[in-house]
Amino acid sequence: MDNLKFSDPEVKKGVEAVERGEMVFIFDSDSREGETDFVIAASAITPDDVRWMRRDGGGLICTALADEVCTTLGLPFMADLLAEGAGRWPAIGNTVEQAGDLAYDSRSSFSIWVNHRGTRTGIPDNDRALTINKLAEISEKGRNGEAVVFGDEFRAPGHVALLRAAEGLVETAGVRPSCRLLLHRWPV
Amino acid sequence: MDNLKFSDPEVKKGVEAVERGEMVFIFDSDSREGETDFVIAASAITPDDVRWMRRDGGGLICTALADEVCTTLGLPFMADLLAEGAGRWPAIGNTVEQAGDLAYDSRSSFSIWVNHRGTRTGIPDNDRALTINKLAEISEKGRNGEAVVFGDEFRAPGHVALLRAAEGLVETAGVRPSCRLLLHRWPV
Repeated sequence: MDNLKFSDPEVKKGVEAVERGEMVFIFDSDSREGETDFVIAASAITPDDVRWMRRDGGGLICTALADEVCTTLGLPFMADLLAEGAGRWPAIGNTVEQAGDLAYDSRSSFSIWVNHRGTRTGIPDNDRALTINKLAEISEKGRNGEAVVFGDEFRAPGHVALLRAAEGLVETAGVRPSCRLLLHRWPV
Repeated sequence: MDNLKFSDPEVKKGVEAVERGEMVFIFDSDSREGETDFVIAASAITPDDVRWMRRDGGGLICTALADEVCTTLGLPFMADLLAEGAGRWPAIGNTVEQAGDLAYDSRSSFSIWVNHRGTRTGIPDNDRALTINKLAEISEKGRNGEAVVFGDEFRAPGHVALLRAAEGLVETAGVRPSCRLLLHRWPV
């Protein structure tokens, strides 16, 4: 499974399903996280999808954003933010993952956690679906060169984790830039 | 329900149940988050408890730490960390919650998200239970004045949210300092 390419017919079928707003399951590989991710387009997710994912998945509901979108929106990796804060809070400097800390990848994709400003606490299914839908919108606007101020629409800390794709990942993988994915981690 | 005191018999009963390692449900109030939290001692939680909470709750599994423990361990509020990072990433400065942003409280309790270094990805039930159990241990050690380095045992970013109690909260509420709580947010 490690050698799947995005040109493979079954992978193409999965990408097309996500583009139609359907949910797909992706098992990454035994040599990596050893888990299955539930994936659905952020623009398509509903409160019922959030409910289903949190009940039948086992982990976190995250929104993945392309590297260039995060650059446009000004969203750092959490690891970099923690390192930046280590000057003021030295203890967190020791927590920041170093090369080799993760057995399954070179670094964590976590960026910051956010709520859309239209939510109340940010955690109910309808709040999380709204936050994720709006992330799809701002991502699309940022990609299209529209002037957007992330903080006008979102506040932090919040209840939806942003994942920032590694530089070059989307191009390498051949995923259509318009395909914004929401990942739900399900340990096996 | 807003006027409950920790000296009330039913509240005392709940605190004692948590001290025995049992799980209790706490509905905060309609005027605050309007949700029920599942609460269990961090030292007592098992992988089965994590599984039950994530399936039958609706939100996040968090570990609450007393203000003075966070001071000892050097763990900031996430809002302060984001504000610190705004110098380098101005966009996140606009996301940081301001007074009045939250309809239900004066500020969010979120600190950083962590994994115990003994975990793999940090997200499966057994990984999260381990992280939370170890948070109870290091909290107890820190409180007892033992020399602890948080980063020796934990890495960030991770999959368990730390909540930092507001200064003076524990004393005001009269909760026994040894009672470390794990909160699971369940929207109603």
